[in-house]
Amino acid sequence: MLKTESVLIIGAGLCGSLLALRLAQRGYQVTLVEKREDMRTVALSAGRSINLALSNRGLKGIKRVGLEHKIEAYCIPMLGRMLHDKEGHTQLSKYSGRDGEYINSISRSGLNKILLDELDTFKNVDLKFNHSCVHVDLKQAHASFKTADSNSEYTIEADVIFGTDGAGSVVRQQMEKERGFLFSHSQNFLTHGYKELTFPPSAESEYAAEKGALHIWPRGENMLIALPNQDKSFTVTLFLAYEGGLNNFNSLTTAESVEDYFKTDYPDALALMPNLGTEFFENPTAPLGTVRCDPWTYGKALLMGDASHAIVPFYGQGMNASFEDVVEFDDILEESNFDLKTAFKVFSESRKPNADAIADLALDNFHEMKSHTAQDLFLEKRKLELALEKEFPKEYFSKYSLVTFSEEVSYKEAMDKGRAQDKAILGLLKHHKLNGDQSLRDQLTLIQKVSQQVLEGELLFEV
Amino acid sequence: MLKTESVLIIGAGLCGSLLALRLAQRGYQVTLVEKREDMRTVALSAGRSINLALSNRGLKGIKRVGLEHKIEAYCIPMLGRMLHDKEGHTQLSKYSGRDGEYINSISRSGLNKILLDELDTFKNVDLKFNHSCVHVDLKQAHASFKTADSNSEYTIEADVIFGTDGAGSVVRQQMEKERGFLFSHSQNFLTHGYKELTFPPSAESEYAAEKGALHIWPRGENMLIALPNQDKSFTVTLFLAYEGGLNNFNSLTTAESVEDYFKTDYPDALALMPNLGTEFFENPTAPLGTVRCDPWTYGKALLMGDASHAIVPFYGQGMNASFEDVVEFDDILEESNFDLKTAFKVFSESRKPNADAIADLALDNFHEMKSHTAQDLFLEKRKLELALEKEFPKEYFSKYSLVTFSEEVSYKEAMDKGRAQDKAILGLLKHHKLNGDQSLRDQLTLIQKVSQQVLEGELLFEV
Repeated sequence: MLKTESVLIIGAGLCGSLLALRLAQRGYQVTLVEKREDMRTVALSAGRSINLALSNRGLKGIKRVGLEHKIEAYCIPMLGRMLHDKEGHTQLSKYSGRDGEYINSISRSGLNKILLDELDTFKNVDLKFNHSCVHVDLKQAHASFKTADSNSEYTIEADVIFGTDGAGSVVRQQMEKERGFLFSHSQNFLTHGYKELTFPPSAESEYAAEKGALHIWPRGENMLIALPNQDKSFTVTLFLAYEGGLNNFNSLTTAESVEDYFKTDYPDALALMPNLGTEFFENPTAPLGTVRCDPWTYGKALLMGDASHAIVPFYGQGMNASFEDVVEFDDILEESNFDLKTAFKVFSESRKPNADAIADLALDNFHEMKSHTAQDLFLEKRKLELALEKEFPKEYFSKYSLVTFSEEVSYKEAMDKGRAQDKAILGLLKHHKLNGDQSLRDQLTLIQKVSQQVLEGELLFEV
Repeated sequence: MLKTESVLIIGAGLCGSLLALRLAQRGYQVTLVEKREDMRTVALSAGRSINLALSNRGLKGIKRVGLEHKIEAYCIPMLGRMLHDKEGHTQLSKYSGRDGEYINSISRSGLNKILLDELDTFKNVDLKFNHSCVHVDLKQAHASFKTADSNSEYTIEADVIFGTDGAGSVVRQQMEKERGFLFSHSQNFLTHGYKELTFPPSAESEYAAEKGALHIWPRGENMLIALPNQDKSFTVTLFLAYEGGLNNFNSLTTAESVEDYFKTDYPDALALMPNLGTEFFENPTAPLGTVRCDPWTYGKALLMGDASHAIVPFYGQGMNASFEDVVEFDDILEESNFDLKTAFKVFSESRKPNADAIADLALDNFHEMKSHTAQDLFLEKRKLELALEKEFPKEYFSKYSLVTFSEEVSYKEAMDKGRAQDKAILGLLKHHKLNGDQSLRDQLTLIQKVSQQVLEGELLFEV
């Protein structure tokens, strides 16, 4: 069924590109405008390319547009967290007790290129790069742009506009400015920033560390992580406070102080970083923010992806959430019999609680990753959960599995159920109510019972 | 000790006026600028004047500047909530089991006038009305203004700037625009708005309803409240959803539909509102929002009052929180040996958790007031709490008492302790673990024990 509506999508990042592709497949006239240059025409230094964790919800989006086979070659499976202590000892904590459940390290630009190449094959898609949006008329669905090499503006008139222009969305800013509707919005920064660094390939041109894991150096307040790249390097990210503590981004001002800090806190990582002294000062320090707003639609415009729900990266769900947006919107569009206005309203209302949930989960996970992963009670809980998942693969799902591998469960449900389960297990372990004398089945039954009571907000007085 | 610094305060509402007065008493050169006209020179219709609930934290601010005797005559004590059901039956639920604990209805403009009159007696205070702030330089502590009757701008150069310019603060907006520091901010609206109405005095020129109470008509999703004025009228506020439900602000478009709605839901109130049909359409419908930001200081500027923490009105704490800001800042200033820069930083960090707490409590109380106040379990809890406060006046404090009457306890502590206590009591009542067979002392001991466990986030497995 060919659609007559013209659709303007502002922002050709991962979310905008996937959305454009799906709407092109649906038969809409799609104009996709991006302010940056075409990433396929500029060479990016491989070591600097940001990699992302692609998991089930993101894959659902890739499958929706039929590109699952094209991306396979770009995915590097990571089976679990490889924890590094200060003495360089490592310990693998698997993501799931079920076989075949893992996350994938994938290059952001590599994935984006696959989507853009596919878009090029559609006659009903007009792709524009280097065009910055300077104004949006939300009620008329008109938007003005200018190119980098010209000061003149031109206007695109469409039937609807999608704002997929990221955390600093111009479309969202226009919603903030509109009067006459109650637009709630927030932008919250952590006191930590991040900086990307590199493990280059080893002297033998191999991965310098175990390839099949997401490496973590949890150090209480701060942490280092590393994800493998296709070129056998790792992208390493330091999450560090801007101020306070023994070391912070403001205090690390010399190559010596940086090396001293790494020597003390990350000695085994330092051994793999010949360029630390230069990279640390050449690469930018970026802030970590959460953006929320409500509603996501006004006039003839809808926000999607980071533009409506930018989250911190600690659950590896940013891209996955944006891709799931596209799938959910596509479903709602079909259910609405392709009435775009209705679909905008339904999507804004039904998706928002899930976006809020993954934003909260991502913030929680920052604390878990930098500190709890290394604590005894947490390790005991993970060990038990993996055993339960292995023994009862269709009955037990940890919070991590619910969020990451259970794409049929909404983020909100995953959060509510997962949090209750965590609280129940930690409480039961602490009170020594789970132990080796019980069968795994009895332990599962007890956990399920107490989780349900916690979920219902009940005060527990007996087990 | 005379101070040499010049202080520019933008916004002469309640918070700005009290702050100006205290800083003038401290010896600073104070310029206080207000965009509205001088409320002492324009007649306000008495029925339309907004009244506020003044309680212990606000009184602490009034005492700090020595005006407690001047305001006494303006205070109307309200001893509790007078609940009205649909049949017009009433029931008084006292605010405290202790004698002498009540809140006061006071006119916003009356209180503001007392503060402005006092400011006029200070030679080191320059008061300007009708001057709108158009730009603020936060780093230089310069601000530009223009008057209503002129388009020309002028600039005031000060040593520091205080932004006490309310929920729509221009000073805060300038902080949002600044780059180079991580400014978190949010603005969240409820789906309800409010409209002010009136009970005029009775035919006998008396109060049309019981004077010594805050009247509430809780109706689940919506509610009506009424507070007494000095002129024997009541200011009545309708809190109603903008859309949805049987009746809402968007659907009530005729005098007939408004009267029908009141006849069904608020019949005893309707009987006291001869002007409802005209007032409803003449008076504005206003939104209910919460504003938060962090940090509150940048450059040489500090936000205070609603500018940094606007809250919804359901705990009657907006003005009280702002006045407590002034007291806390005054204490910190003295502890910092009058180093303004240090005081700004310390105040921003130490006060923020308390502002967040009262914002959250105010949102909670909306749900409590419009629905729970009329529920059996809630009434049973309140009955028990009043008995405990009466019997053990130095040992038991309900959440309401902690927030409203315990000015030596911070909002954050009041919230944490009060919420745990509420959860404990409701849980114990629900599980029939509190009953007439126990002495009040035993009940108190049990509540304290379980509250402490809830506060510590413990899962309870036995009592």
